[in-house]
Amino acid sequence: MTHATVSARAAKRVFNFNAGPGALPLPVLERIREELLDWRGSGMSVMEMSHRSPEFESINAAANQKLRSLLGISDDYAVIFLQGGGSMQFTMAPMNLCLPGKPVDVLHTGAWTAKAISELKKGILHNIAASTESEKFSRIEGTQWTTLPETGNVALVADMSSDIASRPVDVKKFGLIFAGAQKNLGPSGVTIVILRKDLAERADKNLPTLLQYRTHIKENSLYHTPPTFAVYVVGLVLEWIESEGGVQGMEKRNEAKANLLYGAIEASGGFYHCPVENSSRSKMNVVFRVAGGDELMEKQFASEAAAAGLVGTPGHRSVGGMRVSLYNAVEPAAVEALTSFMREFQRTRG
Amino acid sequence: MTHATVSARAAKRVFNFNAGPGALPLPVLERIREELLDWRGSGMSVMEMSHRSPEFESINAAANQKLRSLLGISDDYAVIFLQGGGSMQFTMAPMNLCLPGKPVDVLHTGAWTAKAISELKKGILHNIAASTESEKFSRIEGTQWTTLPETGNVALVADMSSDIASRPVDVKKFGLIFAGAQKNLGPSGVTIVILRKDLAERADKNLPTLLQYRTHIKENSLYHTPPTFAVYVVGLVLEWIESEGGVQGMEKRNEAKANLLYGAIEASGGFYHCPVENSSRSKMNVVFRVAGGDELMEKQFASEAAAAGLVGTPGHRSVGGMRVSLYNAVEPAAVEALTSFMREFQRTRG
Repeated sequence: MTHATVSARAAKRVFNFNAGPGALPLPVLERIREELLDWRGSGMSVMEMSHRSPEFESINAAANQKLRSLLGISDDYAVIFLQGGGSMQFTMAPMNLCLPGKPVDVLHTGAWTAKAISELKKGILHNIAASTESEKFSRIEGTQWTTLPETGNVALVADMSSDIASRPVDVKKFGLIFAGAQKNLGPSGVTIVILRKDLAERADKNLPTLLQYRTHIKENSLYHTPPTFAVYVVGLVLEWIESEGGVQGMEKRNEAKANLLYGAIEASGGFYHCPVENSSRSKMNVVFRVAGGDELMEKQFASEAAAAGLVGTPGHRSVGGMRVSLYNAVEPAAVEALTSFMREFQRTRG
Repeated sequence: MTHATVSARAAKRVFNFNAGPGALPLPVLERIREELLDWRGSGMSVMEMSHRSPEFESINAAANQKLRSLLGISDDYAVIFLQGGGSMQFTMAPMNLCLPGKPVDVLHTGAWTAKAISELKKGILHNIAASTESEKFSRIEGTQWTTLPETGNVALVADMSSDIASRPVDVKKFGLIFAGAQKNLGPSGVTIVILRKDLAERADKNLPTLLQYRTHIKENSLYHTPPTFAVYVVGLVLEWIESEGGVQGMEKRNEAKANLLYGAIEASGGFYHCPVENSSRSKMNVVFRVAGGDELMEKQFASEAAAAGLVGTPGHRSVGGMRVSLYNAVEPAAVEALTSFMREFQRTRG
C-alpha cells in the first residue's frame, strides 16, 4: 500500500437506492473524511480511541442524547447501542421479555417476521395473533404500518430498522424498539435499542451476560468494547437529521420523495405496477414491477439504471422485481433522477 | 453541519499506546480517507454498499483470503467475521463446542479467563485445569503464552485478541481461535473466528441461529448484515501487514519494540519495575510500575506523557500502574519516543 494524498477533486457519486446498508448524507461522509486522521485535535482517528477514553465517552453520550431528543424519548426508557443487528434481537427480545406461561403474540407481516418466528419456535411460547400471509403479505415486502396496533398493558415490541427516525413516533406506545442503524441512521454494525427500563428487569440473570439488556443499560453500552466508529457515525447522522428539521423534517422530505415515486408509477398507465395495497405502501421501501413482471425487462431496467448512476434498484433476491429504498439520506434529487429515467425507459420500451 | 473541504495539512498525530481499540497504520487511515466518498469508482462509500453487492462480496472474500494466506490457514478451517467481540465468544464457544458429559478444561490466567469462567458457570460443565491466580496471575495482566499447551485430541480454544497476527502461530494446534479485531487487525465491531470445520457440526441446531457457527460458515459471514466497514478496514490492515513482511515481519518488529521498552525498564535501576515474571512477559501489553507503585507519580507520568503526545499509558482501571500496548500498528518510533520520555521523567523525579 502506498501513501496516498487526498485529492481535491469532487468524488463521482452515484444515486444510491440500496436497501441497507444504504446512502449516507454527503455532509456526514465529508465530516468523517475531515476527521479521519485526527478527531478534533485528539491526534487520532475515532477508530483508534480507547472506548474508555473521555473522548469516546463523549461521542457515545452525545449520540445517545441526540437520539433521545430527536425521538422524544423519556427517562423511563433506556437507549443502548448493541451489536448483532435486528437478527440478534429476534433472539434477545423474547429471551429478556417473555414471562413464564404467557405466550408472545406475533403479528406476522412478511419475511422478517418469518425469521423472528423461526427463532421463537426454538422454545418460546408464542401465538400468531394475526397474519397477512394468505394475502402474500400484500405482497411480501414494501409494506409499512401507518397506525400502530393497540396492545393495552402488553409491551409492544417493534423492529423499526426500516423506518426509525424517518417520521415522528410515539415511543410511549412501545415496550421495546430495535433497529439496525444501516438504513436510516448510519453504517451497519450497530443496533439501536430503546427499551422501557422496567422491562429489562424481567430477564433471568443466568442468561449470558451479553444477551441481557440490563448489562448494557447499566454500563451505558460500554460493558464491553462497542463498535466505536459506527456509534460515532450514527451521532453525525443524528446531527444531520437535526439540522434538516428533525424527524418532522425527515417525514416531510420522505413523504415528498415517496409521493414523487408512487406518482410516477401510477402515471405510467400500468407499465410500472406496485403490488402493495395503497394504505400499506411503505414510504421507505417502494417495490414495483416493470412491464407486468417481465424478468428480462426488469434486469434491463436495473442495469441501465445503474449505468445511469442509479444504483440498488433490484428487488430482494427472494422476490424479484424492483425495490427502491428512500431512506432519510436519499436526496430528493435522486428520486427526480430516477423518475426521469423511468419515463425515458418506458418511452423506449413501453 | 457544514460542508467541509479536506485540508491538505498533515494531521497532528499522537503516539498511541491504547490497549484496544488502538493505533491503526497511518497508510491504512490515509487509504480509507482517500476512498471514503467513492470506493474505487463505485460512486459510494463502503459504508453505503449493500452487503449483497459484488463490490462488498469482493471486499469480504479478499479479507478472508488475506487472513488465510498470512496465517497459513488450511482448508479444513473456516474463517468467519462475527459481531459481539471476545465477550460474545465466551458464550458462543462453549455453546457450540461442548460435548454432553464432558467438562471444558480451563486454564485460568487472568481477568479475561475470569470473565469466560463466569459465563461457563451459567450451566456449562467445566473444570479449572490450571490457574495462576495464587501467584496473582504473575501478576494480573501483561502476560503472554510463549509455548502452547499440548492438548492431544482435545480441541484447544484460544482468545487471541491481543496477539493475533503479531507473530506466526500454528493454527493446526487449535480447534478454535477468536479475536476482537480492535487490537492488531482493525477497528472494533468485528470479531475474527478461525474454526476447525468439523467442530461447527457439534452444535445443537435448536440454538439461536445467529449463535451457531455453522450459520456464518455456510453463508461466508453474510447470513445477516455484517459490520461492512469494519471488515473493509481489517482487509486493508491485512494488506498492510503483508506489505511489511507478513506475520514474520510483524514478529520481528514487535520483538524489537518490546525489547526496547523492557530494556528501558531494566536499565532504570528499579525506578520502573515490571511485575511480570520474565518468561511470561507479553510483547503486546507491557505493564510496569513507576517509583515502587507511587500512584501520584504514576498519574503524573501518564499526564506528562500525554502532554508530550504519548497517549494511552495508564493501566487497566482495575489494576493501576502503567500499561503500554505495542500492537502491530504501533511504530518503532513511538517506542523510541516513549523510552526517551521515560528517561527524562526519571531524571527529573528519580
